[in-house]
Amino acid sequence: MSAKEKKSIYKPKPVSGFPEWTPEVRMIEQQWLDHIRRTFESYGFCSIETPSVEELDVIRAKGGDGGADVDKEVYVLERLHKEEGDKDARLALHFDQTVPLARYTAQHFDKLVFPFKRYQMQRVWRGERPQAGRFREFTQCDIDVINVDTLPLHFDAEMPAIIWETLSSLPGMEKENIQIRVSNRKILMGFLKTLGITDSKDILSITRNVDKIEKQGQEELRCTLVSIIKHTPALAPLSTIDLIMELVKIKATSSEFSGLLHDFIVRNDVIARSISDEAIQNFKEGIEELAFVMDQLSHLPEGAVVADLSIVRGLDYYTGTVYETVFLDDPGYGSICSGGRYDDLASSYIHKALPGVGISIGFSRLFARMLDNSAFETKRKSPADIFVVLPNEERRALANETAQTLRKRGFNVETSHGGKLKRQLAYAEKKGIPYVWFPPFEDGLDHEIKNMDTGEQIHADPATWTI
Amino acid sequence: MSAKEKKSIYKPKPVSGFPEWTPEVRMIEQQWLDHIRRTFESYGFCSIETPSVEELDVIRAKGGDGGADVDKEVYVLERLHKEEGDKDARLALHFDQTVPLARYTAQHFDKLVFPFKRYQMQRVWRGERPQAGRFREFTQCDIDVINVDTLPLHFDAEMPAIIWETLSSLPGMEKENIQIRVSNRKILMGFLKTLGITDSKDILSITRNVDKIEKQGQEELRCTLVSIIKHTPALAPLSTIDLIMELVKIKATSSEFSGLLHDFIVRNDVIARSISDEAIQNFKEGIEELAFVMDQLSHLPEGAVVADLSIVRGLDYYTGTVYETVFLDDPGYGSICSGGRYDDLASSYIHKALPGVGISIGFSRLFARMLDNSAFETKRKSPADIFVVLPNEERRALANETAQTLRKRGFNVETSHGGKLKRQLAYAEKKGIPYVWFPPFEDGLDHEIKNMDTGEQIHADPATWTI
Repeated sequence: MSAKEKKSIYKPKPVSGFPEWTPEVRMIEQQWLDHIRRTFESYGFCSIETPSVEELDVIRAKGGDGGADVDKEVYVLERLHKEEGDKDARLALHFDQTVPLARYTAQHFDKLVFPFKRYQMQRVWRGERPQAGRFREFTQCDIDVINVDTLPLHFDAEMPAIIWETLSSLPGMEKENIQIRVSNRKILMGFLKTLGITDSKDILSITRNVDKIEKQGQEELRCTLVSIIKHTPALAPLSTIDLIMELVKIKATSSEFSGLLHDFIVRNDVIARSISDEAIQNFKEGIEELAFVMDQLSHLPEGAVVADLSIVRGLDYYTGTVYETVFLDDPGYGSICSGGRYDDLASSYIHKALPGVGISIGFSRLFARMLDNSAFETKRKSPADIFVVLPNEERRALANETAQTLRKRGFNVETSHGGKLKRQLAYAEKKGIPYVWFPPFEDGLDHEIKNMDTGEQIHADPATWTI
Repeated sequence: MSAKEKKSIYKPKPVSGFPEWTPEVRMIEQQWLDHIRRTFESYGFCSIETPSVEELDVIRAKGGDGGADVDKEVYVLERLHKEEGDKDARLALHFDQTVPLARYTAQHFDKLVFPFKRYQMQRVWRGERPQAGRFREFTQCDIDVINVDTLPLHFDAEMPAIIWETLSSLPGMEKENIQIRVSNRKILMGFLKTLGITDSKDILSITRNVDKIEKQGQEELRCTLVSIIKHTPALAPLSTIDLIMELVKIKATSSEFSGLLHDFIVRNDVIARSISDEAIQNFKEGIEELAFVMDQLSHLPEGAVVADLSIVRGLDYYTGTVYETVFLDDPGYGSICSGGRYDDLASSYIHKALPGVGISIGFSRLFARMLDNSAFETKRKSPADIFVVLPNEERRALANETAQTLRKRGFNVETSHGGKLKRQLAYAEKKGIPYVWFPPFEDGLDHEIKNMDTGEQIHADPATWTI
């Protein structure tokens, strides 16, 4: 054994939950990200990026009862060798893009033009225990519109329209049957209060079970309702359960929605049952808003967007419209794109009401699923359109000039580093480069180009040749 | 004071060392990143991205005596609430893209095609003490070519050619006077040994002072040489110092280089002085390699690239060609793009020689400098080319259709959310959107479009109008 062979070797291995792709897969990921960016920009959304970190206090400032849940997932940074007296604020990697957006909007408030339409496509981190299919580092693609004081409801309709356009035209997604499901939290919230369910813990357990209805079926929800009714004697037991179950099962296209809801209200005499004017008002407002949003989306293909009253979203900051997006053939995979409207984005930072509406593509989850399903052709391992052969060392300058001429005309061109012609061609083939260019091997000959797919080889001029 | 006003407010502030831009600056940053990516791809480099983290052992596996220096800058991750028995490997944010590249190349070795030409544009992190102008999170744009066993020297010339093309054509950089300085470490190393300076500590202190010659002048280097000569009686004192000083002051264009070096060797009788055949061989090899690289770059504009024998780079893993890039008007700002050739990229992981050559644009430093110098016009706060006015609520469908027609033709289009016409126009103006589209306000009228720069307003058809 030689000294070299004895040297200890550290076998590199993937870090669980931190995905990484080979060049050919990365090329498709780039196509996807470009496509998403292009679509977002085509609607006038501007890009922002925020640092990967926020102060830990900012991460925790997030309202609602999310705090405890969030804590478990947060990665904090430590300098490996801290110096004495190091009094920097603790920094943590952001776990979503909404918390940084709130801080950003407040911090740069005076420099932003409202309504502020921004997109953000960055990595986020969640330090969960590693498990199959869960990422600890992943990319999200978010769009949000934020305004001061009030935000027109049209934006609630713009979000799913953009997402539909984006997702349905992603390369490789053409055959997938996806559906955006929309609801409005005011409907279920108002309805529960209308029926007399007012305890916030009860409401939370109902919404959590409604949220999971597709994954775990209706039984859990029914059991929760039964137990709530047990300790709330004022409720009319059976009809309450049936009514709630009936409501959350409503799924409707834009043309059906208003009729269905009207029928539900009349048939069940909902207005008369109501024990709270405010609650019924809320309920009706939610229905009107959702009807408006659905109406604005009626130009999309049948089934692209449905009103689905089981959609409530787990996060407490949503106050109106909520969205989820599923594969119709595999709804158990969960939502690949979710969001909603919130009344007050940055109340921890600024004495202004900043209502907004946003939606987020879970890019990495979506991409990884398509990859697992072999949805992509991964032949090309290089962005090069053309590989320029090196006839011999004396003709290197000619090969370089040829490549440069083609580059100036917009082609991506790799020049050969030399070697036997057969090996040069094998290299182009292995990289999946679609065209091979042959500069003249002797004076007086023409340039030639070979189509690697068809094998066809023709005379060509680098100044004029086109694909 | 109302309850709302009394609520405590957390004033958001920037985290020192973690830059973040307003939308108009981000737009230019995107232009820059797109431009760099496009140029890299035009030479056939493929993109890879690696996770933000590596196992701490991998980060530390980096050879040479870099370990201690590196440790100070490394950020390790901790889950905020670790669970009992949590035995995950410690993870650290990468502080460059070379360490991850080495691990990546070894890990995916069987799936890569060599020579492996990759670019990588990602954030890296260095947990230094915060100081003005130093970033703790920043973006680097790297290209590297790696091969198995040997790597042709042509690639050493391709690197500065690509970098010259990239940097000189970045929007806003047109007027900057930048220069790429190239050397070959074998020249200085061989020369020192030729003269009898063989102690590795001595060599290290000389190279460190040569490396800083532009920042701190020649005196430090001279003092170092004096002290080395004191403890190395075999050296001929004065001539040694003068010779080294003369060598590292050599700066030459491609046409001058060979002549100058030949003159230096002959005039100083270098060959005869040499006390080591191996050293003089190394010295000559370095000169030949550098002459070859310079010759291959002779097509670039005068002064774009110079051979500069004071360039040595601090990092030990470079073994041949080395690069730096400076603003000629402000060389003290330091290098904005550096790199070099290394013989053995991944010897910690794999029993194969993987020589490579690479160069890295310090994107954030460069961009921040241009921003400080107000090099950019930041009028546009939105990617939208066209803002479509909403004539009135009844014509919203028409406005949306108009926008969609324009989008399908490749324009970025924002539709107005409504309100008084004057305010709609003010909004477009504030966002710096160059064109405003007026759908007909009544049946029978034409569409019109206004150029916001010139004020010109003309009739137009959304299906055919062009800028």
